[in-house]
Amino acid sequence: MYKLVLIRHGESTWNLENRFTGWTDVELTPKGIAQAQEAGRLLRSEGYDFDLAFTSVLKRATHTLWHCLDAMDRTWLPVQHSWRLNERHYGALQGLNKAETAKQYGDEQVLVWRRSYDTPPPALDPQDPRSEAADPRYARLAPGQVPLTECLKDTVARVLPYWNEAIAPAIRSGQRVLVSAHGNSMRALVKYLDGISDDAIVGLNIPNGIPLVYELDADLKPLRSYYLGDAQAVAQAAAAVAAQGKA
Amino acid sequence: MYKLVLIRHGESTWNLENRFTGWTDVELTPKGIAQAQEAGRLLRSEGYDFDLAFTSVLKRATHTLWHCLDAMDRTWLPVQHSWRLNERHYGALQGLNKAETAKQYGDEQVLVWRRSYDTPPPALDPQDPRSEAADPRYARLAPGQVPLTECLKDTVARVLPYWNEAIAPAIRSGQRVLVSAHGNSMRALVKYLDGISDDAIVGLNIPNGIPLVYELDADLKPLRSYYLGDAQAVAQAAAAVAAQGKA
Repeated sequence: MYKLVLIRHGESTWNLENRFTGWTDVELTPKGIAQAQEAGRLLRSEGYDFDLAFTSVLKRATHTLWHCLDAMDRTWLPVQHSWRLNERHYGALQGLNKAETAKQYGDEQVLVWRRSYDTPPPALDPQDPRSEAADPRYARLAPGQVPLTECLKDTVARVLPYWNEAIAPAIRSGQRVLVSAHGNSMRALVKYLDGISDDAIVGLNIPNGIPLVYELDADLKPLRSYYLGDAQAVAQAAAAVAAQGKA
Repeated sequence: MYKLVLIRHGESTWNLENRFTGWTDVELTPKGIAQAQEAGRLLRSEGYDFDLAFTSVLKRATHTLWHCLDAMDRTWLPVQHSWRLNERHYGALQGLNKAETAKQYGDEQVLVWRRSYDTPPPALDPQDPRSEAADPRYARLAPGQVPLTECLKDTVARVLPYWNEAIAPAIRSGQRVLVSAHGNSMRALVKYLDGISDDAIVGLNIPNGIPLVYELDADLKPLRSYYLGDAQAVAQAAAAVAAQGKA
């Protein structure tokens, strides 16, 4: 049996400001840093250890991982970054306030943009200063690989190759793996691992900064999964995520 | 022509306490963190950029790199850790105060232990709680690879394979490389690159937290090398390192 631990980054400045973040590279808040450190302490006190960590190329996930590794005294662990673990690209919504957007377009439209499996938000104009066209971290991707918007289906489509080619082989080789990622890149993984339907995934919310443990069989099929830590705190944190897009 | 940037970690708690550190995994001081951040700002303002970073498995070098990358907005760069870039192992001196050791054994003996090319300090007992026998980061090394003490010659012997097999090939492949390491693993590299004699290397002191740039030809032979930043500050910092072992 294998164990895999996933963690969504701690609270970011734009989580706090309730803005659509997507690929915008915002910082953790002091609370987000504390969440990451607490996650590391929790993992350590529960006896978890790792050989390899994966994260995105966004600093809120990378810093979450670093604080977590520091708290575990595992600063020296190898870390692999991939854009494929980035948050879902939020298109032209990136930077907008979620509640104000809901006031303008209605709760229902915002819920569609936030949670519809296959309806992406309006695309970013390639000339928009918010676009990643000039960002060196994406310079080596093929034309068209850098999204201008994504629905969760799109995110699943670019996360899964990385699962199949990097993360799953590492787990199968016996390495104990920690993944620090984002709300929607984690939803993509969870949807795949647990076989959640396109409709049911809409209702799944992943709290910030709480380790999610998967116990996997030899074929990497989940035997069970659970959050570490206090169950009530986990439920409250997930409910807070669900409420973000309400006017 | 290639460029390579080396940086010795910022001030550590044991630099501050003037203790022999070696493989002991001590933290940066607030000043050391500030030095690392300043090094990153300096590299960025001077137009440096990197594709790949190397560091040791000790947190003072890793944290120096992380703060440096943060200041450059390059948190996402790939980082390779190797024990071969660790500080020289200081044997049974690890943890002892340099000035007190000099009072006890004399300046000359301490200078021999600190700077002699081929005389190692007294070895650590394998049963000593300070030994790295139970440390998971060294668990996969071959028996005998984890030192109980090292002279600089020993450090050169374990750093160079990593230069030849990891760092040099990365530079030759066109990747812009940053190495965050330690006083003696950097002296080992500098000795090799500049062809410094066993006698002359005794007088070479490397300041904390100041980027050292090498311009290399196609065969990775140095064309020139220089510290970034204010020349007088660099000279003072190197002199301070040289004075550490005096009673």
